Amino acid sequence: MKKILLASTALIVSAGFASAEVVIGGDGYMGVAYGDNGNPIFATTDTSADQVPAGSGNNFSNYSFVYDLDVDFKASGTSDSGLTFGAAGDFDDLGASQGARGWDNSIFISGDFGTLTMGDIDGAAENVIGDLAGVGLSGLGDFNENIFLIGAGAQPAGPVARYDYAISGLTLSLGLSDDSGYNIGASYATDLFSVGLAYEDVADGATVTLFDIDALGSTGSTAITATAPNGASQIIGAASVTFANVTLKGVYGQIDVDGTTVDTFDQYGVSAAAAFGAASVSAFYRAVTTDFKVAGTPDNDFEAYGLGVAYDLGGGLALEAGVAQADSDRAANALTVADFGVSIDF
Amino acid sequence: MKKILLASTALIVSAGFASAEVVIGGDGYMGVAYGDNGNPIFATTDTSADQVPAGSGNNFSNYSFVYDLDVDFKASGTSDSGLTFGAAGDFDDLGASQGARGWDNSIFISGDFGTLTMGDIDGAAENVIGDLAGVGLSGLGDFNENIFLIGAGAQPAGPVARYDYAISGLTLSLGLSDDSGYNIGASYATDLFSVGLAYEDVADGATVTLFDIDALGSTGSTAITATAPNGASQIIGAASVTFANVTLKGVYGQIDVDGTTVDTFDQYGVSAAAAFGAASVSAFYRAVTTDFKVAGTPDNDFEAYGLGVAYDLGGGLALEAGVAQADSDRAANALTVADFGVSIDF
Amino acid sequence: MKKILLASTALIVSAGFASAEVVIGGDGYMGVAYGDNGNPIFATTDTSADQVPAGSGNNFSNYSFVYDLDVDFKASGTSDSGLTFGAAGDFDDLGASQGARGWDNSIFISGDFGTLTMGDIDGAAENVIGDLAGVGLSGLGDFNENIFLIGAGAQPAGPVARYDYAISGLTLSLGLSDDSGYNIGASYATDLFSVGLAYEDVADGATVTLFDIDALGSTGSTAITATAPNGASQIIGAASVTFANVTLKGVYGQIDVDGTTVDTFDQYGVSAAAAFGAASVSAFYRAVTTDFKVAGTPDNDFEAYGLGVAYDLGGGLALEAGVAQADSDRAANALTVADFGVSIDF
Repeated sequence: MKKILLASTALIVSAGFASAEVVIGGDGYMGVAYGDNGNPIFATTDTSADQVPAGSGNNFSNYSFVYDLDVDFKASGTSDSGLTFGAAGDFDDLGASQGARGWDNSIFISGDFGTLTMGDIDGAAENVIGDLAGVGLSGLGDFNENIFLIGAGAQPAGPVARYDYAISGLTLSLGLSDDSGYNIGASYATDLFSVGLAYEDVADGATVTLFDIDALGSTGSTAITATAPNGASQIIGAASVTFANVTLKGVYGQIDVDGTTVDTFDQYGVSAAAAFGAASVSAFYRAVTTDFKVAGTPDNDFEAYGLGVAYDLGGGLALEAGVAQADSDRAANALTVADFGVSIDF
Repeated sequence: MKKILLASTALIVSAGFASAEVVIGGDGYMGVAYGDNGNPIFATTDTSADQVPAGSGNNFSNYSFVYDLDVDFKASGTSDSGLTFGAAGDFDDLGASQGARGWDNSIFISGDFGTLTMGDIDGAAENVIGDLAGVGLSGLGDFNENIFLIGAGAQPAGPVARYDYAISGLTLSLGLSDDSGYNIGASYATDLFSVGLAYEDVADGATVTLFDIDALGSTGSTAITATAPNGASQIIGAASVTFANVTLKGVYGQIDVDGTTVDTFDQYGVSAAAAFGAASVSAFYRAVTTDFKVAGTPDNDFEAYGLGVAYDLGGGLALEAGVAQADSDRAANALTVADFGVSIDF
Repeated sequence: MKKILLASTALIVSAGFASAEVVIGGDGYMGVAYGDNGNPIFATTDTSADQVPAGSGNNFSNYSFVYDLDVDFKASGTSDSGLTFGAAGDFDDLGASQGARGWDNSIFISGDFGTLTMGDIDGAAENVIGDLAGVGLSGLGDFNENIFLIGAGAQPAGPVARYDYAISGLTLSLGLSDDSGYNIGASYATDLFSVGLAYEDVADGATVTLFDIDALGSTGSTAITATAPNGASQIIGAASVTFANVTLKGVYGQIDVDGTTVDTFDQYGVSAAAAFGAASVSAFYRAVTTDFKVAGTPDNDFEAYGLGVAYDLGGGLALEAGVAQADSDRAANALTVADFGVSIDF
């Protein structure tokens, strides 16, 4: 079998054409995860495993393999007048080991006017605020990720369009969903610090995704959503400071969901990430407080902690490990997950 | 992250191997569409949008984003005796912004005997007749596309096999579906004009696709199909003439569907496409007349018009816009759709 | 449209980076298949085709197109300390001509300690034992393939992890499924002969796949599975000898399924494969005997034969043909399938 054999970072320039460039790469990981919430948490077909609740016939294990592989694709070109444009896509794992996911992709055009992007992309709020530092090989439930109301991950109904304008460390961003609302954001960053602020406005009747836990071992994706009959909005801000290879970040956001029994969701958290040569460490604390309108209904507090370490073996190979714990006032037990394994990047 | 960085049109020739060549490219677009059929037409989850019918709870908007991205793949090689062979595929958008589509692909082998192709391909009739000139960024419902009874788009049941033989401007084509029938066609083309004629014969009980509207903004794919209990057939012809950068084309086809209340479908249309430097213009008129067997049942006429403009910005980037109108005797209102945006090609 | 044009086997080496290499290739086939079990066997929508049983309304044909196209992807890199790692994937046909399949993929890391692989991979038993020689363009039902209880094909629930250690012709292999069991195997190979032995242990309640017939023309995939309430196990061995371009192989395995009415499955078979210049011939005989616990229930014998020929046309193009017959004590008629066509490899 004859094959195409390429080496990464090789640049092949053609003569005589305004040439489009294509970049192919990817990343993935393989490892093991441990999970416990007082009882084991990973579903299994092994009937000798513990049943939760006892006698239910549903078997669970404390251990699971974690695995993911994505192949990425980027194309870019230049028009006669100097506009740059291109596309990016992510051929996600459709194999049995992860379930059907499809692939996300987007198109952009960029010039002096700024950059316009459309597709399965982050909204303006996620673009300027981002997430707290993540932990672990698989993300361990991605509890470090902030809630954004408008974006491809939050609103899979149609394409998201976003306009960005960046000048001298200042970024302005405007996001618009096909039918679920809009968001705006601004950030300012130097080598030492960054600050960002964003506002999101959800259209009446659109569904708001409050959690999208997609990496908890073999248990698959679990999203918690709410339909906001009379709209929802969020104001969210973040700040970070970097010194001596350490980055500290804090985020606070308040979501107002009209027309439900919920008054507000408050989300807040801090993270730290540090690099020491080939080693790196990260940690986060994040909380979401649900405040109900009904008198006498107590707040529901959700809290998560995480700690992760990584060691870069060079060439795109790394060892990664992490542990995270999540708890809710209404859950019987806190959830503890940990994982360990190797990640690759090519 | 290290990446493979390639430039399009770069040819890498290996020594010592009968080498297979692989070509990777793609195309896509992003923009906005406007739609109106007396009422707004794009479904939305925004409950503040108009309800159609009023009070139904189904909300519609007059505006929608339109977006698409395809990545194409072609491989070709040569046998020791000089036969050429290869494969082509289209990794279509599986992301949330367009819904799951899968990818179409095919294999071919070619020599002095002609070319044999199998897979998700056009039948012989579509191969020699083609469509009228299209309009708009997204195709605006693809009302310019003729109805063909046998082909991958019309018959997704199994692979289509097609044999083509071309000599001195003459093309002979024979298409055969796994289980839904066959078609034959011939065309003759010079620089000045072309003519084509084709016949299609559908097997008893196979389903005939009469419309496949797959590009109307966020409304997704809508196919109108009919099952022909005692077979169906079509005879279809086309002619075109090109002068001074203008191409005029006309098509007429008659479909006979046995064993239904329909006697015949007549489809006919004309289109014009012209290029002026970087600018280009296209327009079409197309009609389908359904003639019923039952005495006293009036014909049902469907008519569509379209007008499109494009401006090539170079390097694979273009501005495109279009408007189309479709009307049926049995519809309360004509449907008007328009779109505008940028297309990319790499 | 500008494109990336590559030639296979071209190696592009970059300077200054520990470079990851990416290999893209593929294979596929197109042809026709004939099938008969006393009655035609390929389902069709053509209502003029024979109905089986007569009057049932289910139409079947003796002929079908067979088609497949896969595009393969491999990436590999080296860490600073000399560990090799990488990923492999198979973008399988998602087009209408074959139905949705997704893509299988895996990640590996390799060093002096051996090789660790995770993903949609063979287990340890399939890795050291393999299959008998196959026949035909499409595989003709893949009756030459042995039954393995643990592996991605047998157990699509989660990723399979496998550890392999190879030294001086000896290979040791340990496979572990997410939740369905483990297997171990060892093989020893020289240029003249090879021997292998493996043991598989299925977790209680996991589902055992006893047949996975996925290539019988347009009839699609047919898997025969059994759920083993109290576990299942297999011991399987194989031996092969190669002389004068001929390879003979024999396999024997015994599966014990606890907690069912079945006592044991015995699978055994032999195959021969020979190459004469550009031509090659292969043949196999394989049988599965099901022994029931209930007194008086006779054994159920399943037997399959196959014969295949291929002719290499060079450059990756080949002609392939084959015929296979399968029969069971409990089936009314033996099943005969044959196919013919061209295969491509790039």
